[in-house]
Amino acid sequence: MSTTHTIGLDLGGTFLKAGVVSEDGTILERIRYAVDPSSAEKVFKTVGEAVGACRDIDRCLVAVGLGIPGIMDHGTHVIMNSPNLHCLDGRALDDLMKDVCPLPYALDNDANCGAYGEFVAGAGRGTTGSFVLLTIGTGVGGGIILDGALWHGARGFAGEPGHVVIERDGRPCNCGGRGCLETRVSAGAVVAAYESRGGRAASAEEVARRAHGGEGAAVEALADVGRDLGLGLAAIINLLNPEVIAVGGGVMGAGELLLGPARVEAGVRAFRASFLSTRIVEATLQNDAGMVGAGLMARGVIQ
Amino acid sequence: MSTTHTIGLDLGGTFLKAGVVSEDGTILERIRYAVDPSSAEKVFKTVGEAVGACRDIDRCLVAVGLGIPGIMDHGTHVIMNSPNLHCLDGRALDDLMKDVCPLPYALDNDANCGAYGEFVAGAGRGTTGSFVLLTIGTGVGGGIILDGALWHGARGFAGEPGHVVIERDGRPCNCGGRGCLETRVSAGAVVAAYESRGGRAASAEEVARRAHGGEGAAVEALADVGRDLGLGLAAIINLLNPEVIAVGGGVMGAGELLLGPARVEAGVRAFRASFLSTRIVEATLQNDAGMVGAGLMARGVIQ
Repeated sequence: MSTTHTIGLDLGGTFLKAGVVSEDGTILERIRYAVDPSSAEKVFKTVGEAVGACRDIDRCLVAVGLGIPGIMDHGTHVIMNSPNLHCLDGRALDDLMKDVCPLPYALDNDANCGAYGEFVAGAGRGTTGSFVLLTIGTGVGGGIILDGALWHGARGFAGEPGHVVIERDGRPCNCGGRGCLETRVSAGAVVAAYESRGGRAASAEEVARRAHGGEGAAVEALADVGRDLGLGLAAIINLLNPEVIAVGGGVMGAGELLLGPARVEAGVRAFRASFLSTRIVEATLQNDAGMVGAGLMARGVIQ
Repeated sequence: MSTTHTIGLDLGGTFLKAGVVSEDGTILERIRYAVDPSSAEKVFKTVGEAVGACRDIDRCLVAVGLGIPGIMDHGTHVIMNSPNLHCLDGRALDDLMKDVCPLPYALDNDANCGAYGEFVAGAGRGTTGSFVLLTIGTGVGGGIILDGALWHGARGFAGEPGHVVIERDGRPCNCGGRGCLETRVSAGAVVAAYESRGGRAASAEEVARRAHGGEGAAVEALADVGRDLGLGLAAIINLLNPEVIAVGGGVMGAGELLLGPARVEAGVRAFRASFLSTRIVEATLQNDAGMVGAGLMARGVIQ
């Protein structure tokens, strides 16, 4: 049998990204669609169009993987909460998919798809067992791979490293809690740290550029946030001792200026032997991770 | 074939507990030995005596499980650090076992054995997938079961819930870190919380007795510690969404007076859907968990 390809779909609040994905995670073709968030039916009409367009490109596509923004019950495929696509709240995705998708499909949340993509085809390539992805942007997303498969937990809600509490009496978090990792580690936190050191920048990317240019306050701001990231890494290491933790997201333009201090702090906070046996690296697939992961995950539903 | 039994050994800094363990985790016979911690050879001579004594009781024992106090490399079976039996530091346990144990054996750290025992024969009985044990005593130990098996991580150092950081700028911890869960959740923390509320007690057990007797300060002290426990539970829930988290150890004489406030706090801090799908219960095997788990784990090395 010739090599089979799959369709990887990464659904967001604004765009649906679709790709034809090869067995090794290469994106062979890509298409982007605007999403009309006013109803679930409209969103899935676009999903159907994307599947059709991919099949027009490649007649031999065998399955679809779809990454969904939001919290999904992994047993029933019901969306509990989708902050960026509220029209999906409470909807059973199989009811929506069956009308628009003629191929077998796999569903997962977008952060899990990203983790799976990085594990197989990105920073985790060659890792056989355990891998955790943290994606730092507006907040901290991620996913956990154990024994080579996504870890979903009792009902699919596992893999929320952004909401590990690192500060008992910390700042209120969007999740309703307080002191979660993402209250101190995010693009906004980088800007805030820079401002607290007397700087002024429009974005975390700008802080990173200035830091790479040698500006002291920017370097220090990234180190501040990096050290807090280290607390989250230490929690993951002490609980799971994964082979690899990869860190991605918009903030990672900072690279080692963020990750270096994070590694040092994790080394102090985590058990030494455990820390030394977990590699902490940069993610490599950037914005493609979710689409690649969805496409690779689709291979799991092929006979 | 008739039912086979195994030997479960729980090695501590002072005593070695040995038991004949049935397939369902019942302890059929038990013996206790004093341990001479002055050399690894003396410790393992006692291990050999315990194995021999168990075989004198039951001629059909087929395997041995041994729980070790300390951090062990799961690949090489080398002890990295055993705070209560320093004579084992750096020793390869297979070298020691081969001289004293004529049966096939399984090795793991004592906390993992306890978690496995609770999972199969205690609070996790009937749980098929994922289970986390937290044992609160001098510190917080524990173990993680995923897909029905102990999760060891890259090299066996996973499962240290006591050292998840819950307080960024918190108190120094014995591990070298700061603000770990066990700096706020332990037998000593219960006594300290009671004293900070004007009480005076010799032990956490005494605080628990007074709380059960209705003394306000004791009830509040347990609630203080319970809320901090809730932060650790929330971290575990948000990362792993396990089916069950069981809490055991000497402090659990307090029962729901500790666990109730912990559950409430975890409910605030963790994602709602994830929290609702993870049960938080009391452990049931108390001090036998390690021996039972070691005996049950031994079944894994039988052909």
